[in-house]
Amino acid sequence: MAITVVGSVAYDSIETPAGRKDRCLGGAATYFSLAASFFTDVRVIAVVGEDFGPEQEAVFEARHIDTRGIEHTAGKSFFWEGSYLENLNEAKTHITDLNVFASFEPKIPEAYRDSEYLFLANIDPVLQRRVREQMPDVKLVAGDTMNYWIKDHRPALLEVLKGLDILLINDTEARMLAGNNNLVQAARGVLSLGPQTLIVKHGEYGATAFFSEHSFPQAKSPHHAFRAPALPLEEVVDPTGAGDSFAGGFFGYLASQRELTPAVFRRAMFYGGVMGSYACERFGTERLQQLTRKEIDDRFTVFRELTHLD
Amino acid sequence: MAITVVGSVAYDSIETPAGRKDRCLGGAATYFSLAASFFTDVRVIAVVGEDFGPEQEAVFEARHIDTRGIEHTAGKSFFWEGSYLENLNEAKTHITDLNVFASFEPKIPEAYRDSEYLFLANIDPVLQRRVREQMPDVKLVAGDTMNYWIKDHRPALLEVLKGLDILLINDTEARMLAGNNNLVQAARGVLSLGPQTLIVKHGEYGATAFFSEHSFPQAKSPHHAFRAPALPLEEVVDPTGAGDSFAGGFFGYLASQRELTPAVFRRAMFYGGVMGSYACERFGTERLQQLTRKEIDDRFTVFRELTHLD
Repeated sequence: MAITVVGSVAYDSIETPAGRKDRCLGGAATYFSLAASFFTDVRVIAVVGEDFGPEQEAVFEARHIDTRGIEHTAGKSFFWEGSYLENLNEAKTHITDLNVFASFEPKIPEAYRDSEYLFLANIDPVLQRRVREQMPDVKLVAGDTMNYWIKDHRPALLEVLKGLDILLINDTEARMLAGNNNLVQAARGVLSLGPQTLIVKHGEYGATAFFSEHSFPQAKSPHHAFRAPALPLEEVVDPTGAGDSFAGGFFGYLASQRELTPAVFRRAMFYGGVMGSYACERFGTERLQQLTRKEIDDRFTVFRELTHLD
Repeated sequence: MAITVVGSVAYDSIETPAGRKDRCLGGAATYFSLAASFFTDVRVIAVVGEDFGPEQEAVFEARHIDTRGIEHTAGKSFFWEGSYLENLNEAKTHITDLNVFASFEPKIPEAYRDSEYLFLANIDPVLQRRVREQMPDVKLVAGDTMNYWIKDHRPALLEVLKGLDILLINDTEARMLAGNNNLVQAARGVLSLGPQTLIVKHGEYGATAFFSEHSFPQAKSPHHAFRAPALPLEEVVDPTGAGDSFAGGFFGYLASQRELTPAVFRRAMFYGGVMGSYACERFGTERLQQLTRKEIDDRFTVFRELTHLD
């Protein structure tokens, strides 16, 4: 089933211990849709400036991603510059230029309206909510957010959470959102704000899914938590977009399945980890662009060997 | 098969967000032997002062731990005071009084000499080496260390590493020991110093075993890594001794098995996680003292459900 994703399509200048790369194609919606495109049809809603040309368009086309919802407007695309010199787990932001994103009014193409899955990538919760309201009939909605919105735009964010089935955030964000330092208690707090399922991303340590009693109404026994590993990587070239790629693999796999059982969610967590690990292997979206489905399934097997007793 | 463990038997005063407890029975050898005693026979080598009486002795006796190697001497037992108020993952040390430990000369009772397993808990590497040399015929030797010995006593520590089969340390220590920030590269560096197997403990995120090509000479295919989770805990009352309890569960299970196959190591990692998680549930060794084998196996099942796809 098709996923519509709304979020940033951007340029990133990135410095890591492995080197520096200027103006890579980036943005949460870009990483998400590339990762999800290996599992299902993906449709993007975003805004770009005059600096987004046929070369960038071709990256989406190569993965058969529908870009009719990418609005082209006068000005420059969203630009981010950051580095990971001291800590590969946390970016230090040098520049954030919203540019054309500052006046973004998401419009949903008619052709996207039958999407059954909706992903609200990390953008202003006011925009997330506007998109959510225009797609009231979707089957499953997931979303991401960040510390900035949690701290300074809480009321708008709380409105978004009410309309989410699944929230994907990192450890610090989960603790901040719930105002609780214990992860299990924080998860329960977040689950009381709307989502039935919370995925907490731990960077190099993987991710944990916390399920509420509403996650699987049909299941015989409750499913409380599931922990997926991250792959211990020989070299993390660039962690930018790893979280969005995790979300793309996770949500893309869910959208490709007929039934949303606990077993399907577990496999989705593994596919999320697989896509996140590949994203780190090269700068920007380079590795995701060259990936094959066989490589994805091979690494899924490695994840199983890394965690399973037998 | 019996394990001999050398390390500290001590008193700890601990403050955590859950409260404060003064002069609990503690020390690495105490946590290790309590945890390992659920799997196999354990024999302790340590030194205590006049403040160690029948009440403390009884804690070991209740778990059938051999204490003939605990030397009683004039003076006070090792004392540590620390807190975890800001960060449950890292203790802040307020006081370390070596007391009788300062002049400790480990002696191995005749009755311990047929032990086939040896664990060198975190003490001065000079003492670790002295014990190792007195037990040249053991089947498997594992050990722990800490940042202080890595930084300021490196030559002595490197000598110990040459005689170890398995080293258990945390993330920061592994990176410091190898002088490399990437965990996979750091693990390879540590494995080149002696141990065939490195267990890196990640606190609340579990632990990773890195195997060298010498870990399982009989195995058909190489086993590179295995990641065991930690249990997401509702309340961490006191993380003191969690790493030593992990080591006790891990090494105790190994010592209880006839063959050391990759599958046995994987299960040992889970038992390590189980014992570490129980240790955190009460202050000091309280929870380990009251634990039953059934509770251990029940939590092993929870660990499996937390990580396995099917």
